Amino acid sequence: MKVFSGRRFDVETNKIILPNGNEMNVEKAHSAEVAVILPILSGQVIMLRQFRPVIGKWMYELPAGLIDAGEKPVDAAKRELREETGFLAAKMHRIIDVFSSPGFSDEHVYIFFASDLKEVGQELEPSENIKLLKIPIDKAIDMAKSGKIKNVHSVAALILFDKQRKNRAAKP
Amino acid sequence: MKVFSGRRFDVETNKIILPNGNEMNVEKAHSAEVAVILPILSGQVIMLRQFRPVIGKWMYELPAGLIDAGEKPVDAAKRELREETGFLAAKMHRIIDVFSSPGFSDEHVYIFFASDLKEVGQELEPSENIKLLKIPIDKAIDMAKSGKIKNVHSVAALILFDKQRKNRAAKP
Repeated sequence: MKVFSGRRFDVETNKIILPNGNEMNVEKAHSAEVAVILPILSGQVIMLRQFRPVIGKWMYELPAGLIDAGEKPVDAAKRELREETGFLAAKMHRIIDVFSSPGFSDEHVYIFFASDLKEVGQELEPSENIKLLKIPIDKAIDMAKSGKIKNVHSVAALILFDKQRKNRAAKP
Repeated sequence: MKVFSGRRFDVETNKIILPNGNEMNVEKAHSAEVAVILPILSGQVIMLRQFRPVIGKWMYELPAGLIDAGEKPVDAAKRELREETGFLAAKMHRIIDVFSSPGFSDEHVYIFFASDLKEVGQELEPSENIKLLKIPIDKAIDMAKSGKIKNVHSVAALILFDKQRKNRAAKP
């Protein structure tokens, strides 16, 4: 049963029978899928300093956005990267897909690394409050490890990137 | 304005003025804070294979649970670890705190490493469908990197643990 219908998410409640036989009233915050992008340009990560009305704070984050109905995750990643940062990516490589908080939401997130970037200009939406930053890769990874970056998807993307980079470097 | 009041989360909508001067109707899924725990016992991670009704799947995840009102994150971490896995932790070390999805939810997550474990017995809730697993650390980290683990907080915790372990090993 749909109990809330919003612009960003809906809420549905449903009675289900669990694998252990118990009945449960499940509350689900239903979200569109999300693309998160880690863009690298000349050894720097293009990041955002972004105001998040839901928590009332400015946060350091990677570019990200909702995947439209019928849109491929990689196409949404390219579109959001261009809109939020003004960069077109010739290379987009999918790293992992994860759920943000499977205890209450079905939000499914696809994380990409972007490279071979070309600047074409930002197209922000009226609700977006975004300052662009270019941060050296090692500093960005330190910000993820030390807790300065508080968006868990940005943290996971940066640390996975670091790990893959070191694995590549270690190969003969 | 509260538009939905649930057991796991509420929904509030509020008109606000953004830093750029535009007005926005903010939809917030309000959640209690969450504790996530990475428990290590004799070189193995104690993990869960857990049924998630919201996405209708069994997932590999670290133990986690809601922090009660007035409860310290570290105390919730100890309590949830005991209830879900049956292990008491003598050592609990906070690694990072993050937001699950700051575009629509204020869910704030505290991630801990737990060690010096002693088995005292599980206490599952009727809605919990959990199988306990003990997985060698290196295999668990591989599962996080390769996409077999789909909970972003479990992924971040395991890869941060791996990174800190390697940094410690590299120190003279």
